[in-house]
Formats: sequence, structure tokens, C-alpha cells
Amino acid sequence: MVVNMINRVREQRPLIHHITNAVVMNFTANGLLAFGGSPIMANAKQEVADVTRLSQGLLLNIGTLHEDQVEAMILAGKAANEIGIPLVLDPVGAPATRYRSDACQRILQEVKPTVIKGNAGELAHLVNQDVETKGVDSTGEADHEAIVRLVAEKYQTGVVCTGEKDVGCMEDEVFVNETGHPYLAQITGSGCLLGSLLTASLTVEGNPEDHLMATLSHYGRAAEEAAAHPDVEGPGTFIPRFIDALAMEVET
Amino acid sequence: MVVNMINRVREQRPLIHHITNAVVMNFTANGLLAFGGSPIMANAKQEVADVTRLSQGLLLNIGTLHEDQVEAMILAGKAANEIGIPLVLDPVGAPATRYRSDACQRILQEVKPTVIKGNAGELAHLVNQDVETKGVDSTGEADHEAIVRLVAEKYQTGVVCTGEKDVGCMEDEVFVNETGHPYLAQITGSGCLLGSLLTASLTVEGNPEDHLMATLSHYGRAAEEAAAHPDVEGPGTFIPRFIDALAMEVET
Amino acid sequence: MVVNMINRVREQRPLIHHITNAVVMNFTANGLLAFGGSPIMANAKQEVADVTRLSQGLLLNIGTLHEDQVEAMILAGKAANEIGIPLVLDPVGAPATRYRSDACQRILQEVKPTVIKGNAGELAHLVNQDVETKGVDSTGEADHEAIVRLVAEKYQTGVVCTGEKDVGCMEDEVFVNETGHPYLAQITGSGCLLGSLLTASLTVEGNPEDHLMATLSHYGRAAEEAAAHPDVEGPGTFIPRFIDALAMEVET
Repeated sequence: MVVNMINRVREQRPLIHHITNAVVMNFTANGLLAFGGSPIMANAKQEVADVTRLSQGLLLNIGTLHEDQVEAMILAGKAANEIGIPLVLDPVGAPATRYRSDACQRILQEVKPTVIKGNAGELAHLVNQDVETKGVDSTGEADHEAIVRLVAEKYQTGVVCTGEKDVGCMEDEVFVNETGHPYLAQITGSGCLLGSLLTASLTVEGNPEDHLMATLSHYGRAAEEAAAHPDVEGPGTFIPRFIDALAMEVET
Repeated sequence: MVVNMINRVREQRPLIHHITNAVVMNFTANGLLAFGGSPIMANAKQEVADVTRLSQGLLLNIGTLHEDQVEAMILAGKAANEIGIPLVLDPVGAPATRYRSDACQRILQEVKPTVIKGNAGELAHLVNQDVETKGVDSTGEADHEAIVRLVAEKYQTGVVCTGEKDVGCMEDEVFVNETGHPYLAQITGSGCLLGSLLTASLTVEGNPEDHLMATLSHYGRAAEEAAAHPDVEGPGTFIPRFIDALAMEVET
Repeated sequence: MVVNMINRVREQRPLIHHITNAVVMNFTANGLLAFGGSPIMANAKQEVADVTRLSQGLLLNIGTLHEDQVEAMILAGKAANEIGIPLVLDPVGAPATRYRSDACQRILQEVKPTVIKGNAGELAHLVNQDVETKGVDSTGEADHEAIVRLVAEKYQTGVVCTGEKDVGCMEDEVFVNETGHPYLAQITGSGCLLGSLLTASLTVEGNPEDHLMATLSHYGRAAEEAAAHPDVEGPGTFIPRFIDALAMEVET
């Protein structure tokens, strides 16, 4: 199943439109290219709907949100819903400020995501649960599966909760991924890039829960492989080897 | 000729003002530094003309265009034309949306580029030819030399069409470059960075067609060298080795 | 003293809010993570004060300034001053244009930095001295200590002047750092990242002049270590090894 999905992404090279934060644009584009997709990143309100209509998937990430971008996200999101392509929302730092929290709700009132992907603190915030947070990264303990089920029910979407173990839910099926490496928490944008790959995986026909699980598994194993590379001596040298590992061939 | 131009860039360290897309700013700045130029990247309408007047060259790249940036590009472009410094326009994704296409025409009505650089789909769009496109990367087949000549005639500029073979035209002289490596298509921003280096090469006295050809040749050979490095195992490890190779000494 | 400060940063993982230039956001975030801090980068006027109030330090860097960002910097800066957290201002390219120079003065009239960090040309400009400049990098000769003392007196702040030798001043105490490597001038954003690390170091209790000096020393030694790594063959391969070296353990 892993093989099929990733190899199909590589054959189809789905065009994924990203409205994402300024910190991770380059890393996300290179990571998605390595995985097998084709990134496009437009921000202007005048063209985001048109770009979405050319695309096979849409990722919305609120990490460096501003007013024009909220409007652009709603326009792009509505276009994605109209043409029926997968849409992944990453509510980065939603609990951090009232502005970000409200913007997230504005988007969710107008746009229906296929999957909401975040850490426990971000997802808990979307269902008014309290999880201890520090900035944009969740540090508290929580029953991730319970949060995932609450978000899935309230927003009627698939959900992926990242953490030491990733917990996902799609159409009532819960799945857990245990691949990964601590280096992913020592570089910026690892969660953001994952959102992009999840979007690409959902463009492939088949069971979306299998595709999400396969992407989580591949992502974590790529991190493990990169971290084990003899030339990797820290987070800086981890990054290029991780991109390499995302591009690795998948055995049949 | 190659030697002279690149070594002159390294002696003169021309300041190149970039109004470019947000995805590639960091990669472009590091790549131009490695080549021998000095990057500056300002966006505010209030200062782009002043920054241009301090510079020896201007690059305009519409990859993540928005309204304020169109105005900034026109202000900077007019300043570049007034003081007579080289100006390279990269119409990234121009065929993708009406907004981008129109913005491109607005810029071209007010600003005269020294060189327009793009892939076959982008250049064909500027002369109302149809080439099959997928997002911002051209995938169709086309007679690149014919397109290059049409763009050169319509806009009275030099033209560089990137692809498996790069085809350029400057003052009626057509040139073809065959260096390069498939890795360049597997990372983001390789075309964007090339636009920056072409701008830097045009700041050196001498025949501009020789400088463009020399830059294309050096760029492709740097990619070949990097790809052949024993430590390169994928697109992630290619990137830092490619930057290294751009900085390599040029033999006399 | 070096040991204590850096290890305390790593224990406390201070959240540092950055309003910084678009070229260096990714590199800065990865570099601060390697050093031991926790980056957050928000730009919207609606949330920058709230994000600052969650943070332990604030960095303002004017490298790609625009009007909304000036307002955001003033809002964030006032919030930082109110809650008494360290604030570092990096007046990138202040002498280059009237707009940037005026914006810098607007910020300095409303916000009191703990430290102003720049090259000799930028700092000289803040006290109306003339130093030969080329773009955003200072190239002229100047009596750096004299400039540092003038800036410290006029703005009643700590000052760090970067260069071949870094010269700092905090509460009348002048210090000089001689670690470093020419590669730092061949990559983009090395000065910008330093500003972020200086901010993180000031969140630790103790003598701020010791913390600034320790950060300068660690930064330069990390560059020396990375440059000496056998796998580093140019500025491209220097970057990941430099991030690794910033994360290196500090001996007691």
C-alpha cells in the first residue's frame, strides 16, 4: 500500500498549491519535490482561486498569517471545495493568539478541509480543550486519540495529530504511527512539510486513511534513515540527508 | 571568455537588486554570493527605486507576485532603465493565471528588460503561442529557437529559454547551451537563481551574448560537478554541493 | 561563563519572537534551534504584541522592511519594553535608503532596544557618521570602538558592531571578539542569525556583557569548526556544518 501510493504520486506528480508560512516555503518545496509532488505557491487574492483550479491539492498553513492571506486562503479553499480536490489545513500556533484563533475559525466556517493536521495543542484548541502549550509547539501531555476524535467529529474531517507518536483518524478509523526521529523537532518546518506530503498523498485514488498512514510512516522512516547516515552530525547536516531520504525508492 | 567574465564579476562584486519570489530568496542570495555577486532584496515601494540606483543590475521575478510588488517592480524597473543598468525579467508561471499574465504585460509596458528569461511555456505565452504547461514548469515540446526569436523581436530584448538544452538570443545571435543535470529540475529555484547570475554577468563590459552563454555553461557545469560528487546521494545533498560548485575557481 | 549561559539557554529554551527579513527566516529559525532557543516569527499587526507577550525576547531586523512591518515592529517593541524582555534591533542596510533610515528612526523613537547590532556602516549612520558602504555590507574602515561608544551613548543601549573583529559595549564595558571565519561573509544571513542568538543569550540571568561576549565567541568558534570540517569544500557545504557546530556541546 505504501509502495503503491508513493509510486503513484511519483508517476502523477500532482501539483499542490500551498498558501503557507514564509519560514518554510523553500524547505517545503524541496521536500515535496523529493517526495514526488510538484509545488506551487501563490498568495495574491487575484490569482489563488485560479491557481487552485489548476492544482490537484491545496495546503493551507497559518504560520505567518496576515489579513490578505486569510482572504486568500478562503478564496483558494472555496475553489478547492468546488472542484473537489483534497485540502489540508495546518492551524500552526492557533492557540497562541486571539487573532490566529479567530482567523482559523473564519477559515473553517467557509472552507471544509479534508484533513486538519496539527500538534496536540493546536488540535485541542480547535475543540476548546486545554493543553499546555509553549509558542507554536505543543509540550503538554494529552490523550491524543481523544482529541483527534473530537476534532474529527466537530469538523467532520480527517485529522492527523503529530507528536512522538502520530495519531490519525479518517472516517472513524484511527491509526497510529511510531516512525520518526528527535531531529525532526530540532529543525524548523518539519510539521509544515508533512502537511504538504499528506496533501499530495490524498490526490491518489484509494483509501485516504491508508495514504495518510503511509505518508506518516515514510516521513518518519526517512528521518530515521537520514539520522543514521554516517555523515550526519547534527541538525544542519540532517536536513539535506532528510530531503534525500524523502526521495528514496520505495520497495515493492 | 568564460574566465574573464566570471573573474570580473568576482573582482567587481556587482550589487544586484532582486525583487523576487519568497520561495527562493535565501537560495538565490547564497547562489549569487557563490558566483561572485552581491545580493540585495528590497520590496517596499518607498525604497525600491533608491535601492536600484545603488545597484549594478536588477532582477525581477514574478513567482509570488502581489499588487504592491507589481508596483515596486515597475518603480525599480524604470529606475534601472533610467540609469542604464541591466535588467532581467523572469516571468515565472506567466501562463498559469490571468492575473500573472496581465501583471507581466503591465510590467513590460513600462519597463524594458535587457533579457527575458523563462522556460518555453512562459516565453511562448509572451508571444501568444501555445505550449502545453503544467503549473510553473513547462512540460510540452516546442521549437525553442523559434519562440526565442519571436520574443526577442516583439520585446526587442535578449532572451534565454531554459530547458534540457538552453537556447538564447542576443542581438540576433542565437546560442545553445548543453551543460546541466536533471537534479536542477528536482530542486526549487534553480531557474530563479540562474536569472540572478545572468543579471550579474551582464554587469561586466564586453559582449553580452558571450556573458550569457558563459553563465549558462558555468551553471550547468557546476550542476554536473556537484551531481558527480561522491557525497551527493539525492536532491538534498546536491544543493550545498551545487552552491560550492558555483563558487569554484575558473581556470584561465 | 560561556558554559553557563549557553547551557541555561538550552535548559530554558527561550521563545524568541522575530520580526525579520524574508531572506533569512528559515536559516535564522534553524540556527536559533541549534543554539538552544525556540523561534517564533509573526508579522501581522493584529498579533505581534500578543506574540511578544508570550516570548522571552524580541528581535527586530529591517532587512526587507515595508510599511506594515514598521508598524508591527513598533507594536511588538512597545510590548517588549512594557514586559521588560530583551530587545535586539538590527538596522540592516539603514544607510542605503532614506526610507530605511527614517523607518529606523521612527522605531527608535518609540522603542528602546537592549542592544543595537550592526556593521560599522549601519551603526555609524545611526550617529550621523560617514563610513563608506556598499549595499547592506560595510566595507569601509572606521574606528569601530568609537562608533560603538557613540551609539551606546546616544541611544542608551548595548551595542554590538560586527566585523573582522567584533566590538561590543554594554554598560560602559567594551569587549572585543576575534573568533570567526571568512565563510560567514560568503553566505547570506550570518549577521541576521547572530542577532537572534544575542537576543536568546540576553534572556539568561547574569551579566549581559558576558552573555553577549560569550555568544560572539561561540558563534565565531562554530564558524571556525565548521570551516575546518573535512567535508566542507565551499560556502554551500559550510552552511549545514555551521548549524551543526552551533548545536555543539559546550564543555564545562
